[in-house]
Amino acid sequence: AEEEYETDLPRIDLGIDGLDEMIQGGVPERSLMVTIGSAGTGKTTFALQFLHEALEQGERGIYITLEESRERVINSATEKGLNFDEYADNGQLAVVDLDPVEMANSLRSIRSELPRLIESFDATRLVLDSVSLLEMMYDDRARRRNEIYDFTNSLKNAGVTTMLTSEASDEHSYTSRHGIVEYLTDAVFVLQYVRPDDFRETRLAIEIQKIRDANHSRETKPYEITNEGISVYRQANIF
Amino acid sequence: AEEEYETDLPRIDLGIDGLDEMIQGGVPERSLMVTIGSAGTGKTTFALQFLHEALEQGERGIYITLEESRERVINSATEKGLNFDEYADNGQLAVVDLDPVEMANSLRSIRSELPRLIESFDATRLVLDSVSLLEMMYDDRARRRNEIYDFTNSLKNAGVTTMLTSEASDEHSYTSRHGIVEYLTDAVFVLQYVRPDDFRETRLAIEIQKIRDANHSRETKPYEITNEGISVYRQANIF
Amino acid sequence: AEEEYETDLPRIDLGIDGLDEMIQGGVPERSLMVTIGSAGTGKTTFALQFLHEALEQGERGIYITLEESRERVINSATEKGLNFDEYADNGQLAVVDLDPVEMANSLRSIRSELPRLIESFDATRLVLDSVSLLEMMYDDRARRRNEIYDFTNSLKNAGVTTMLTSEASDEHSYTSRHGIVEYLTDAVFVLQYVRPDDFRETRLAIEIQKIRDANHSRETKPYEITNEGISVYRQANIF
Amino acid sequence: AEEEYETDLPRIDLGIDGLDEMIQGGVPERSLMVTIGSAGTGKTTFALQFLHEALEQGERGIYITLEESRERVINSATEKGLNFDEYADNGQLAVVDLDPVEMANSLRSIRSELPRLIESFDATRLVLDSVSLLEMMYDDRARRRNEIYDFTNSLKNAGVTTMLTSEASDEHSYTSRHGIVEYLTDAVFVLQYVRPDDFRETRLAIEIQKIRDANHSRETKPYEITNEGISVYRQANIF
Amino acid sequence: AEEEYETDLPRIDLGIDGLDEMIQGGVPERSLMVTIGSAGTGKTTFALQFLHEALEQGERGIYITLEESRERVINSATEKGLNFDEYADNGQLAVVDLDPVEMANSLRSIRSELPRLIESFDATRLVLDSVSLLEMMYDDRARRRNEIYDFTNSLKNAGVTTMLTSEASDEHSYTSRHGIVEYLTDAVFVLQYVRPDDFRETRLAIEIQKIRDANHSRETKPYEITNEGISVYRQANIF
Amino acid sequence: AEEEYETDLPRIDLGIDGLDEMIQGGVPERSLMVTIGSAGTGKTTFALQFLHEALEQGERGIYITLEESRERVINSATEKGLNFDEYADNGQLAVVDLDPVEMANSLRSIRSELPRLIESFDATRLVLDSVSLLEMMYDDRARRRNEIYDFTNSLKNAGVTTMLTSEASDEHSYTSRHGIVEYLTDAVFVLQYVRPDDFRETRLAIEIQKIRDANHSRETKPYEITNEGISVYRQANIF
Ligand SMILES: Nc1ncnc2c1ncn2[C@@H]1O[C@H](COP(=O)(O)OP(=O)(O)O)[C@@H](O)[C@H]1O
Ligand SMILES: Nc1ncnc2c1ncn2[C@@H]1O[C@H](COP(=O)(O)OP(=O)(O)O)[C@@H](O)[C@H]1O
Ligand SMILES: Nc1ncnc2c1ncn2[C@@H]1O[C@H](COP(=O)(O)OP(=O)(O)O)[C@@H](O)[C@H]1O
Ligand SMILES: Nc1ncnc2c1ncn2[C@@H]1O[C@H](COP(=O)(O)OP(=O)(O)O)[C@@H](O)[C@H]1O
Ligand SMILES: Nc1ncnc2c1ncn2[C@@H]1O[C@H](COP(=O)(O)OP(=O)(O)O)[C@@H](O)[C@H]1O
Ligand SMILES: Nc1ncnc2c1ncn2[C@@H]1O[C@H](COP(=O)(O)OP(=O)(O)O)[C@@H](O)[C@H]1O
Ligand SMILES: [Mg+2]
Ligand SMILES: [Mg+2]
Ligand SMILES: [Mg+2]
Ligand SMILES: [Mg+2]
Ligand SMILES: [Mg+2]
Ligand SMILES: [Mg+2]
Repeated sequence: AEEEYETDLPRIDLGIDGLDEMIQGGVPERSLMVTIGSAGTGKTTFALQFLHEALEQGERGIYITLEESRERVINSATEKGLNFDEYADNGQLAVVDLDPVEMANSLRSIRSELPRLIESFDATRLVLDSVSLLEMMYDDRARRRNEIYDFTNSLKNAGVTTMLTSEASDEHSYTSRHGIVEYLTDAVFVLQYVRPDDFRETRLAIEIQKIRDANHSRETKPYEITNEGISVYRQANIF
Repeated sequence: AEEEYETDLPRIDLGIDGLDEMIQGGVPERSLMVTIGSAGTGKTTFALQFLHEALEQGERGIYITLEESRERVINSATEKGLNFDEYADNGQLAVVDLDPVEMANSLRSIRSELPRLIESFDATRLVLDSVSLLEMMYDDRARRRNEIYDFTNSLKNAGVTTMLTSEASDEHSYTSRHGIVEYLTDAVFVLQYVRPDDFRETRLAIEIQKIRDANHSRETKPYEITNEGISVYRQANIF
Repeated sequence: AEEEYETDLPRIDLGIDGLDEMIQGGVPERSLMVTIGSAGTGKTTFALQFLHEALEQGERGIYITLEESRERVINSATEKGLNFDEYADNGQLAVVDLDPVEMANSLRSIRSELPRLIESFDATRLVLDSVSLLEMMYDDRARRRNEIYDFTNSLKNAGVTTMLTSEASDEHSYTSRHGIVEYLTDAVFVLQYVRPDDFRETRLAIEIQKIRDANHSRETKPYEITNEGISVYRQANIF
Repeated sequence: AEEEYETDLPRIDLGIDGLDEMIQGGVPERSLMVTIGSAGTGKTTFALQFLHEALEQGERGIYITLEESRERVINSATEKGLNFDEYADNGQLAVVDLDPVEMANSLRSIRSELPRLIESFDATRLVLDSVSLLEMMYDDRARRRNEIYDFTNSLKNAGVTTMLTSEASDEHSYTSRHGIVEYLTDAVFVLQYVRPDDFRETRLAIEIQKIRDANHSRETKPYEITNEGISVYRQANIF
Repeated sequence: AEEEYETDLPRIDLGIDGLDEMIQGGVPERSLMVTIGSAGTGKTTFALQFLHEALEQGERGIYITLEESRERVINSATEKGLNFDEYADNGQLAVVDLDPVEMANSLRSIRSELPRLIESFDATRLVLDSVSLLEMMYDDRARRRNEIYDFTNSLKNAGVTTMLTSEASDEHSYTSRHGIVEYLTDAVFVLQYVRPDDFRETRLAIEIQKIRDANHSRETKPYEITNEGISVYRQANIF
Repeated sequence: AEEEYETDLPRIDLGIDGLDEMIQGGVPERSLMVTIGSAGTGKTTFALQFLHEALEQGERGIYITLEESRERVINSATEKGLNFDEYADNGQLAVVDLDPVEMANSLRSIRSELPRLIESFDATRLVLDSVSLLEMMYDDRARRRNEIYDFTNSLKNAGVTTMLTSEASDEHSYTSRHGIVEYLTDAVFVLQYVRPDDFRETRLAIEIQKIRDANHSRETKPYEITNEGISVYRQANIF
């Protein structure tokens, strides 16, 4: 019996001003993506806006945070005009704060329950902020890889578009802290600080490192974080 | 039932001349912050001034030191005109010197008692100088991360604004010695030496690396340490 | 008794536009090859085109993926006009998605079965995407080397031309992640990002690092990934 | 009852020509200091002169060496005109050569006896040359930190002004070999080689990296070692 | 009784065009040598030519390969016009392919049998391609050193001139992968890639790093690999 | 009773042409010295000449080699005109080749016997070529330090002037392979390759890094190895 292959995956927008225009045709639905950056580059803001894009269109989303409290996440997003308070109230949005130690310990059961949770909640987008905190909980490297491999795999099969955030490696802006997720994901966005030699002002720069099966700009563009979130300046240059 | 989210967190000043002007609107109250720098960059002085800002306004503060004796801390601060002797006498200020080995060994109980201590003392600000000495006590990396994660979490929930100090990594001025706290904190200040190629005079430079939910300058500015403490020169440049 | 040595190995094309012209006389049949590159440099696309070259000529091929699902691989290739859906349907192509953890655990039996599988399927080309995910599963370095040595050896003896893909080391574009496969293979292709100092546009560059017993260009040439796959621009230069 | 805090610590000179003028007001008495440098930069000479400064004023001092024999230390100092032979004879000076292995093994008892020894000898200054040899004896990093922390702490409480010498890290001139002592001490002096690009003559350069509670120059200045010891050239520049 | 010392060791040629002229007087017979280079720099070709030089003069040689099959080695050499097929047939040449895992496991017995084997075969030259694959089999570093020390020692005593090949370290072209053989051998040849900044064409360069008791050029010279093997261009320069 | 201190240590020459003039007044007799350099920089030649200097004056010397055979050492030296064959015959010279594994295993007894051996042989100079091979035999770092510390200490007390040779670290020319001996010795000589950017000719350069209690040049000077040994060109410059 001949199988059916859908050669034209539906595409979605990320909801980041300026960045969506750098991706021709959008990101394939149900992709597993990661945003890599060091502390303060805007990963959380990026993920909030990604979720907001779906909420705004009446879809439902799940935000899992290992770093901040549920309240803090909702407040932050609401301050940035993303109305997470309303979405949380009207049931479109689930914000879950997990303790990374506990998450690591019960990852197997989380992995098996997550697909059901996502389905029953009818979520189209999911955020995990940050996968590095989860990875850090495993000191044994092979164990860490296995767990992260299995976990990202279950996310790929869960029928949801997912954005992970990851700390950057100390040495290389384009490498995640543990050097695994960029290989397991379908798309990689890199946020970085660019510090000029004259020690004046630190700039923020974004590059799309990869999107499987999509054509995208390979330019590095400046962006800013304001109280309306992240805006990428497509017409400007870093220097 | 609808929940209430406070979208306008009260903001506070750090009490560092010139630096407070680099933060539009101040730092959110109850933030957990860290100052990263190598030996002699002024972390302790920074933390003393941060606490003094509150004491001066009649609030109460706790200074936990793992590096120096209680007497030395009070003397140093008093010499810098911060009157810690008076504040310690009039009961606004508690200076506690802990042995890092003992602190590490009893971190669980410290963690559970700290909130009560903070509440009963009615402290609005707390300093831990330095978190690196605590981190160093754990050789097992996963253990260290778990302990520091839990500890910083309990500080976030203790209803107090906290300043940690942290040694910098040998390799990267913008990375803490153990590479964890900058991700667990709400704000990161980086103090660093800038050594010109001609081997003349070493300069001191400060950058605000991140403040969650706040707009701040991204400039790197020179500062000096005098017998009145740290002053940041907003109008000057490093080179 | 005198033995016979075939001094003129049959040569094949890789199926990558522009690259085949950089290899005088083609790659020796039954070579074991590797393509090294960091995330998004086009390793998977490279491997798909390599397999397609044989399928197009009526030969049979096996694609083993440790990274993506069988469906995703077929869709990706089909979107790029490589008709993997048809080849899978007409039985010329076998796409197998394996879990790297399981593959690592049962590598011994896989190793012993693979030659029979290849023979019975009558495959002339095989892809393993990626060998790094397999290597990662071993934390003990000597164990990893032994396993990979034995595995690549059985591939060399299986009578098939094989393309492995490998992640690049973080430090050195020309080194594979675990630094072994480039020594065990007969040919090494290096895909890399070239990021100019002005932080403008990231370029893609390819170099043939080695082909045992073949004469090849030592130039580094730009390439692009389009929806028709990888094209190497032999006439152009990176800068 | 109100406590008394001495806000004006008595200050002392180091006894290094040119360097004392770089410290406004002198180093606080009873400080724990460290001189960091690689092999041959003059750490031992520095420490000998530091001790001589007190001996000359009729005070008493203790020199603990882990590197050389008692005889060699006295000879070296005497050759440099520091008259250690006479001071050793007249009882002002105690030179003790310890085996670092034994010192490490009995550090607990040494730690408890040292304060009494210092007091009974009535020493005002103490040298340990070098703390790195002691640190090296511990392979377990957490153990090393605990031991060094406790040991430096007992020195701080022993009522003596102490100069440690430490090997520099291979990578960073400003970091001690094991990266601990610069954080546990009140003052850090960095001795380093400056090797010009033309491979001509290696220069010696000194920087005061930190002195808690003291104002000091941040310049890097050339120095020389002659048969009268170290002289810092305040008016000269490295290049 | 007075012992006899032969002060004029017989000297031999390596058989590499252009390189032999860079060594005044040739390499001392019975030397243990190593050729260091990364994948594809021509180490195997170098070793084949070294052996061929002796075969051509009617001497006998042994080629031990840990990387390729016996057939592949003979084919490669024969394709390059080195007639290994004939030499293997007429009994002048023994090509042995060993599994590095097994070689490592039975190194002790190999070590004790090798001298007899060499003597009974009457070989004057021996190749081991590559020693890195053998070294890799030991994860315990002290064990590795001991084994390699003993093994190279038995080669020195076996009355044969030996060429080892070794992978280069990732970091330093002039260092072997495990950093031992260059110290245990009498001569070191370094093959390296030189990649110009403009990302155009990668060049091949050779340097004689050491030959005990021989005068040699210290120039770095370009070389090429053609279907006649390696030729060093003594008159040319890399840039 | 007053002790006697000899403030004017007798001084000796090293026997290296050009280098002795860089040391004002010579090296103190009975010093423990080390020559650091990578493979082929001339450490062995340096040590042979050092020993020859004493033999020539009718003194007696011991040469311990861990790298080469006794015969090879004598031949090499004799070829360089150092007449080791005669000195070995007339009993002025003892050349001992030791297996580093065995030396490491019986270091304790060697340590206790060495002083007697030196005394009974009446040697004034001793060479150990190389201490790195001995250090390598210990994988446990603390153990290695203890052993090397005790061993070098026993050499210092044996009443002999000693020259150790040591491999250089891969990263830093001025650091020994294991980073210990340069701190335990009284004098450090650094031999290094200087490779110009144009990849032409590699030069040899020497620097005196330290000589305790001696005034010496801090220049880096070119040297050459000829069949008469090492000559340092005091009047020339590297570039
Ligand atoms: N249709 C397309 N048009 C243009 N570029 C594409 C297209 N499909 C994929 N790419 C590019 O190819 C990259 C991924 O290629 P892939 O072979 O999956 O890389 P790798 O296996 O090395 O991670 C994407 O990041 C994207 O830049
Ligand atoms: N209202 C705002 N106006 C301007 N900048 C802001 C605002 N809120 C946050 N930022 C900036 O965003 C940064 C934090 O963004 P965040 O998404 O939390 O980063 P990350 O998750 O990568 O640590 C802050 O350091 C600050 O520079
Ligand atoms: N016939 C040939 N013509 C030109 N170059 C060749 C030929 N055969 C091999 N080479 C070159 O030699 C390289 C491999 O040489 P080899 O000795 O196997 O290197 P190594 O052992 O260092 O990996 C190939 O990558 C190719 O560049
Ligand atoms: N009264 C003062 N005048 C000028 N500089 C001072 C004074 N007191 C301290 N400093 C400077 O401050 C530095 C130490 O500051 P500190 O806050 O203790 O740094 P850290 O905690 O980062 O080690 C000293 O090294 C010195 O340079
Ligand atoms: N007769 C000679 N003429 C010129 N150079 C020589 C002669 N003998 C040895 N050399 C040089 O000396 C080097 C080896 O010196 P050696 O002292 O053995 O170095 P090391 O012990 O540091 O490895 C050789 O690599 C060679 O360059
Ligand atoms: N009399 C002297 N004249 C000139 N320089 C000397 C004299 N004595 C020692 N030196 C220099 O001092 C260096 C050693 O100083 P030392 O204090 O022992 O250094 P460290 O303890 O850092 O190894 C020697 O390498 C030498 O350069
Ligand atoms: Mg965040
Ligand atoms: Mg401090
Ligand atoms: Mg891929
Ligand atoms: Mg010293
Ligand atoms: Mg080879
Ligand atoms: Mg040698």
